[in-house]
Amino acid sequence: MNNNGITAPRGFLASGVSCGLKNNGKKDLAMVVSENIAVAAGIFTTNVVKGHSLKWTKRNIENGYARAMVINSGCANACLGERGDKDAADMAQYASLMIGCRPEEVLLGSTGVIGFPLDMDKIRKGIKDAYASLSSQGGTLAAEAIMTTDTFPKQASKTITIDGKTITIGGMCKGSGMIHPNMATMISLITTDAAISREMLDKALRHVAEKSFNRVSVDGDTSVCDQLVIMANGLGGNTPINSEDSNYDTFVSALLEVSVNLSKMLARDGEGATKLIEIRVKGCHDTESAHLILNAIAKSPLVKTAFFGQDANWGRIITAAGYSGASFDPDLVDIYLGELMVCHNGAGLSFDEAKALEILKKDEITVTLDFKSGQVDDKIWTCDLSYDYVKINGSYRS
Amino acid sequence: MNNNGITAPRGFLASGVSCGLKNNGKKDLAMVVSENIAVAAGIFTTNVVKGHSLKWTKRNIENGYARAMVINSGCANACLGERGDKDAADMAQYASLMIGCRPEEVLLGSTGVIGFPLDMDKIRKGIKDAYASLSSQGGTLAAEAIMTTDTFPKQASKTITIDGKTITIGGMCKGSGMIHPNMATMISLITTDAAISREMLDKALRHVAEKSFNRVSVDGDTSVCDQLVIMANGLGGNTPINSEDSNYDTFVSALLEVSVNLSKMLARDGEGATKLIEIRVKGCHDTESAHLILNAIAKSPLVKTAFFGQDANWGRIITAAGYSGASFDPDLVDIYLGELMVCHNGAGLSFDEAKALEILKKDEITVTLDFKSGQVDDKIWTCDLSYDYVKINGSYRS
Repeated sequence: MNNNGITAPRGFLASGVSCGLKNNGKKDLAMVVSENIAVAAGIFTTNVVKGHSLKWTKRNIENGYARAMVINSGCANACLGERGDKDAADMAQYASLMIGCRPEEVLLGSTGVIGFPLDMDKIRKGIKDAYASLSSQGGTLAAEAIMTTDTFPKQASKTITIDGKTITIGGMCKGSGMIHPNMATMISLITTDAAISREMLDKALRHVAEKSFNRVSVDGDTSVCDQLVIMANGLGGNTPINSEDSNYDTFVSALLEVSVNLSKMLARDGEGATKLIEIRVKGCHDTESAHLILNAIAKSPLVKTAFFGQDANWGRIITAAGYSGASFDPDLVDIYLGELMVCHNGAGLSFDEAKALEILKKDEITVTLDFKSGQVDDKIWTCDLSYDYVKINGSYRS
Repeated sequence: MNNNGITAPRGFLASGVSCGLKNNGKKDLAMVVSENIAVAAGIFTTNVVKGHSLKWTKRNIENGYARAMVINSGCANACLGERGDKDAADMAQYASLMIGCRPEEVLLGSTGVIGFPLDMDKIRKGIKDAYASLSSQGGTLAAEAIMTTDTFPKQASKTITIDGKTITIGGMCKGSGMIHPNMATMISLITTDAAISREMLDKALRHVAEKSFNRVSVDGDTSVCDQLVIMANGLGGNTPINSEDSNYDTFVSALLEVSVNLSKMLARDGEGATKLIEIRVKGCHDTESAHLILNAIAKSPLVKTAFFGQDANWGRIITAAGYSGASFDPDLVDIYLGELMVCHNGAGLSFDEAKALEILKKDEITVTLDFKSGQVDDKIWTCDLSYDYVKINGSYRS
């Protein structure tokens, strides 16, 4: 069994079980436990509305430490008033009794339909089963148990050397709808055996999220349950990272690699997606403009359906840039599909349509806009918009 | 032949012909001529990128007067550099020679694919044919000729009495993709035989657009060619409206009725739409919040696919409100599908699913969110997101 996700670092056990929250009998509850107490940090949805399980985690992670995380799919535990908060607390308490830790040390995640309460009998059964099947090889099962409309489990890991010690970072995440930057735009858990202070861990996570999870858009919808959590248990035995020294840099760069890999999986597995699309902007006047332009293009249904149709309709791309709210000189813009220039100085070129089609047929496409008016480059990952997106989302709740 | 569009007011002639810009032989060039010079005002796309025909109109309408408008479909005349500007000027000049007016008095509109130049031989042939077939009954033909992916021509008119004189307002517009508020979000021409000053006409248009055309969203994309133009030729013989008196109010209220009717047609005929959805917010804290919330809900692909699937997934509605950027207390929100309350004080109710389905099966649906935290009410019109939206837009250019 491959072990390149959350159980890749030392001292993390995981499991994934089916407790009946999903009608189809698929796995729907994941548990991750660190052998010892871990330093923890998190980033949470910017949505004004917040799920009850997420609120539990957001509040308790402020302590800076955690032992475990329990994530269920099939029910979001959101918009349920006091009952939702109570169910979250009960879920954490029940798990803490099994694990032998304080309830506040159990982080929670819930994903699924909004407005329907958790079936707590099923949750308790699931927690019990999950605890019983914890394993140092269980990362993949956990990654499977947090899936909703995902078509494959998403895991990544990276091993580095710090102080001559082997340090591993592993992660899992789930999409694949309601995905749009502005916080952890999904549920993701990253584990590491690095020894690192809470302050540095938090800083590293925020820095990396901006360049990975916050650079993914599937449909522009920011969920009420989105969270990105990291747990560092220190079992790697390196001298604890307490400042932004070269060890910190090594750690951050590995964390970035894991996070970018997970992020690209999120985009590639966007609901109904047939293609991973990387949109790059070059020569923007400022960071804010780059951000606005990337978001507008990645969100545009017209751009996304054109990619699905393998249609070199770059007019929709410049249109989206134009209404993004960023100001730029349209008469300077060059646009490339892959390496093929299709628009120069804001005017269409009569390009080779056969070559364009060849590029658009691939399942990974890069689009580049060069604004030639500054030094800022940036990128975002998104996917196309297909019939299957409509199919999946026309009947998700039922 | 019905005559309830742009030729309903006195003194306006119109026609619609096929000149070969569309491959399928459908009508693709419309001409509208006022018997005398008309007062004119316009609202234009906020997109940084602007089509060349639109730029011509935007510049020349500043004079405050116009005799005619020529609109082609099948080609946007956008993103073509100097050539696009020259083609626009030639188009206006050629029409002006026929009509016997100055080129600056001919307004232009172009809609279709971006980045491909106008075939000026076809345009000249079209203008010649359209001029030859001008008729006081030609409004419907013109409304047909400006259609792109629209499934029906869009016209409306209203007759009122001012000073004992019968005054008519008529309009046409076309959608049905790249539709989102922030200016005239399509091409629309409104004609009237009212006598009104330029200043009052401009003020009336801006006031009305905010409550009609700027309250429609199909896909969140603001096109580079969007414009709303009004021409008032004064042939109704009323004492000219020069101030915000009761005659002005009568005029504005009729203009609003025509504009709302056209706007609802735009939403109902959104690409692939099966339903017209009116989203209402009540009790918002301020205008800006109301606007943000309405836009977010109307743009959300998750909300729109749920309506297509007749799925009472109100969780997506509150989610969209939550990420809109507006701040509100989620624990105060009530949500209604039609008259059916599905969420009270931010928590889901166990409502009658059969009743919900009955409401969602209709082709006109009203959704209401009550925030109970202020005095501001507002609304927006949108449509669902169906397989056909993907089909239409996956292959529009080809």
